[in-house]
Amino acid sequence: MAIPSRSVPGNLASLPHVVVIGGGFGGVATAKGLAHQDVRVTIIDQHNFHTFLPLLYQVATAGLEPADVAFPIRTIFGHAANVRFRHGRVRSVDQARNLVTLGDGSEIDYDHLVIATGATAAFFGVPGASQFAMPLYTLADARRLRNRLLSVLEEAEVRSEVSHDSPDLTFVVVGGGPTGVETSGALSELIAIAIKRDGLRLDPARIRVVLVDVAPRLLTAFPKRASAYAKRRLESTGVDVEFGRSVVSIDEHSIRFSDGEQIECAVVIWAAGVSAGDALPEDLEAPSGPGGRVRVGADLRLFDSINVWAVGDAAAVPLRDGEYCPQLAPVAIQSGRHCAEQILHVVHHEVTTPFHYHNKGIMATIGRNAAVAELPHGVVVKGRLGWLAWLGLHLWYLVGFRNRLRVLINWTWRYFDWPSGPRLIVADAETVD
Amino acid sequence: MAIPSRSVPGNLASLPHVVVIGGGFGGVATAKGLAHQDVRVTIIDQHNFHTFLPLLYQVATAGLEPADVAFPIRTIFGHAANVRFRHGRVRSVDQARNLVTLGDGSEIDYDHLVIATGATAAFFGVPGASQFAMPLYTLADARRLRNRLLSVLEEAEVRSEVSHDSPDLTFVVVGGGPTGVETSGALSELIAIAIKRDGLRLDPARIRVVLVDVAPRLLTAFPKRASAYAKRRLESTGVDVEFGRSVVSIDEHSIRFSDGEQIECAVVIWAAGVSAGDALPEDLEAPSGPGGRVRVGADLRLFDSINVWAVGDAAAVPLRDGEYCPQLAPVAIQSGRHCAEQILHVVHHEVTTPFHYHNKGIMATIGRNAAVAELPHGVVVKGRLGWLAWLGLHLWYLVGFRNRLRVLINWTWRYFDWPSGPRLIVADAETVD
Repeated sequence: MAIPSRSVPGNLASLPHVVVIGGGFGGVATAKGLAHQDVRVTIIDQHNFHTFLPLLYQVATAGLEPADVAFPIRTIFGHAANVRFRHGRVRSVDQARNLVTLGDGSEIDYDHLVIATGATAAFFGVPGASQFAMPLYTLADARRLRNRLLSVLEEAEVRSEVSHDSPDLTFVVVGGGPTGVETSGALSELIAIAIKRDGLRLDPARIRVVLVDVAPRLLTAFPKRASAYAKRRLESTGVDVEFGRSVVSIDEHSIRFSDGEQIECAVVIWAAGVSAGDALPEDLEAPSGPGGRVRVGADLRLFDSINVWAVGDAAAVPLRDGEYCPQLAPVAIQSGRHCAEQILHVVHHEVTTPFHYHNKGIMATIGRNAAVAELPHGVVVKGRLGWLAWLGLHLWYLVGFRNRLRVLINWTWRYFDWPSGPRLIVADAETVD
Repeated sequence: MAIPSRSVPGNLASLPHVVVIGGGFGGVATAKGLAHQDVRVTIIDQHNFHTFLPLLYQVATAGLEPADVAFPIRTIFGHAANVRFRHGRVRSVDQARNLVTLGDGSEIDYDHLVIATGATAAFFGVPGASQFAMPLYTLADARRLRNRLLSVLEEAEVRSEVSHDSPDLTFVVVGGGPTGVETSGALSELIAIAIKRDGLRLDPARIRVVLVDVAPRLLTAFPKRASAYAKRRLESTGVDVEFGRSVVSIDEHSIRFSDGEQIECAVVIWAAGVSAGDALPEDLEAPSGPGGRVRVGADLRLFDSINVWAVGDAAAVPLRDGEYCPQLAPVAIQSGRHCAEQILHVVHHEVTTPFHYHNKGIMATIGRNAAVAELPHGVVVKGRLGWLAWLGLHLWYLVGFRNRLRVLINWTWRYFDWPSGPRLIVADAETVD
């Protein structure tokens, strides 16, 4: 439903105040829907940028640079006089007093509150996982993982020179969902490029990338033939795919499985799942749904609340028959837009309408030249056509023309294996011995 | 003098081994001069990338991204079978045994050793300077400074909202050489863009950028009229230029001068000078020259040594009449090339030749649209023509076509004030409250 645009009066202070916690897909979509309307909006995030999460695995594998997938939140709303950005972390929410408190102690009162806090990596209590496995859910995660992967290759190169023998090197990716599939495929490519272009003398035959999952197939959200295709393609790029393996423990140099086997490995990448609960403000009084998500009604309002809403990964958005929407970017964007419309309805004393998710399909890429997509009505697109569709869609949805141009340049370089590319180990501190 | 290219035999191990410490302009030029020749080369650096230092101030002021000015050293030499890169920090040099020891304890023996360790920020013993002032000499420095500058603007924005009054904000740049001039000009631009594009509600009239120097003019290496022009241009972009002020002490929120005045300030940027001594391996036995530089003979060999050489900022390279070459990128590149030629002469039992610096001019840019250059014979180029020359030269010397393309894109965005640009606060750790 289209909401007629209303001009914002000069005195913003008298307008209803909407506070949006989180500058991801859900929060930004909500704030965009409220821009230039007769409310004032404060969007709060601990980062001053919006992150395009679907391309984070490319930052981690040195295909893209951090700034390619990030966009300053202030710049997104620079044109909207009624939207302010607040850099900070929400410490607590007082629903009785309609107040949020930030980490620095400052308080912000609201008329409507939107929970768009997303999710974080879930370690499911696996011993050592939170300490030694590397998640991939924030830009800082991606930078840390990239520095680690490149450092491990450098260290292995040194060992091979000292011992005149290429060492065995194993990278384990836990989780066969889109993040695990995309990361393991791109990691396999990164290793090949580093050896070919950067003159590493490592023996490719001694380097393994292993993708493990407890499930019997990859990409369980996709049809079975898409899963089989993804497995075939991953294996052709040199990734070992192992099913039915659950992780028992992780330490600094190894991972142990429930079948008793322990593998020495240099890096464990954790793509096993996410939890919404850990990302929520700690004292939020809200009914908890699957994956720690906040239960919401059809209009995206928290049960028992008239002015607190939840969107995106943080919300258990009803789909049908007791099912919930998946935690995907399109759900976050659509629910954010819907939430903005509903808040305006409430502000204008109109009735709210239920949210309906329009599934336009899901997709995952498997290295260069291959992707798999499931379109509505069970249509599956594979191979180079799927990959081109994947490229186009991601360029389209990326925020900012400059970012699109830069991503296109980086992809071109990577595609043709041209020299350079952002294979830089850039840490805040100088830590090399 | 051109050295005829010799094909490298298959058995590299039997060739004389040249170890180059440092992957800056000097070290890379040396190793390039030795690529595909009948020596084997190991180039050692604590970073896995070469940094294009002349554009570092643009990274610090969010005009360019870290990866735009950095290039993997491995990739530079990926085509040269006789050049290896070693990621690490040199801990000590044993000139008697022709051995360098790295931080991880591994030893590398050499037939020839090239000291190309550059320089680091010199704090001249000013109390608090090394702790609170921010230098700008490595990519990590530039990232830290950028995060700090953007965070200070974010915090000021919050204070202005809480108090309904824009706070006073002062940035002090210490040092009126090219780094200080370029950084203060770009910082003034960054603040203007942040307010215009990112919707910061700060009052520009309450924000000061102050450039201080103990000397009576800017850019003392340039002719006086160039200095006067630089001062005029800087002041027109809103920078306060103050001469004859030496810094007595710095603490977290203020800077104190020898005239007794103390200024409250948010950030002190330290561009007051460099020291080569602190960058050298600690136990290098070498005669020390001005600025801690290693004294070398006309052929760039250390006095009293037959196989240890020094190039670039680390070396006190004789110019004429007891003077030394300035610490500039062209000197580093030319001395690196010359050093490579001389090492090959020695390897081939030929006599060495003296180094002559060919001064092609110096230049500094002052914000957008203005630069000043001194060409040989005292010719001074100013204004937009100087700026275009500056752009062209820096694009030309930057390593890698991809980097050039990306820098050009970022400069175009900045030039036209288009939305976005890399104004991202991306730290290794999540530190926001």
